[in-house]
Amino acid sequence: MKNEHLSQSTIFPLGQKAEQYFVGDAYLQMVFTDPTPLNTAIGNVTFAPGARNHWHSHRAGQVLLVTGGEGWYQEEGKSARPLKTGDVVNIPANVKHWHGATRDSWFVHLALTPGQTDWLEPVSDDEYNKL
Amino acid sequence: MKNEHLSQSTIFPLGQKAEQYFVGDAYLQMVFTDPTPLNTAIGNVTFAPGARNHWHSHRAGQVLLVTGGEGWYQEEGKSARPLKTGDVVNIPANVKHWHGATRDSWFVHLALTPGQTDWLEPVSDDEYNKL
Repeated sequence: MKNEHLSQSTIFPLGQKAEQYFVGDAYLQMVFTDPTPLNTAIGNVTFAPGARNHWHSHRAGQVLLVTGGEGWYQEEGKSARPLKTGDVVNIPANVKHWHGATRDSWFVHLALTPGQTDWLEPVSDDEYNKL
Repeated sequence: MKNEHLSQSTIFPLGQKAEQYFVGDAYLQMVFTDPTPLNTAIGNVTFAPGARNHWHSHRAGQVLLVTGGEGWYQEEGKSARPLKTGDVVNIPANVKHWHGATRDSWFVHLALTPGQTDWLEPVSDDEYNKL
């Protein structure tokens, strides 16, 4: 597996295993939740190889800052976009999508989420294994 | 010097040398400037050992996410706070302060700045060398 050093995350703490809304092993540590001066909370999300979140959408959008490893971002009806360290994704409001690790690499991103999230169905193995 | 690998920054690009408002060699790369969904721009700032910004304040505050190396954050009239990888600083609005590298280490942080910045005088060598 690639980027094994990310199994303890990178830069920010690994945090707790995310039990809901993920397939595979993923971990979440909130790093910023103060009410000011930002309009957003910031979480550090670490995905083991093959792990991904369920399809979901954000009522006010979301920004991802990729801090390590290799992963995917896919909007419904579009090709999956490969992600690597240093990539930035601006996810529009109310667009159904998912993100996660590639099959053979750990993956870490900061998620800046200014509003609520609506969770949907898992990304099936069929869909994921096509990538 | 410690953390020489950060001389090409880490994760995000090094960007351009910051000519104004810094003592020593510092580099800035904006990584997020879209108008939505965040109320903030995000810049990646890399400081060579001994480099620091001038005293300044932010009209809406600022959040720092430290991604590498060792540095300082100091508010006027207070002791300097040492910063290391993974630290988060919530800088209140209109508080005079500066940040930068230690004398012997490179230092990198993301700066999330939702409003304007008011720049003031340099941090003198006398002040800096007391740390």
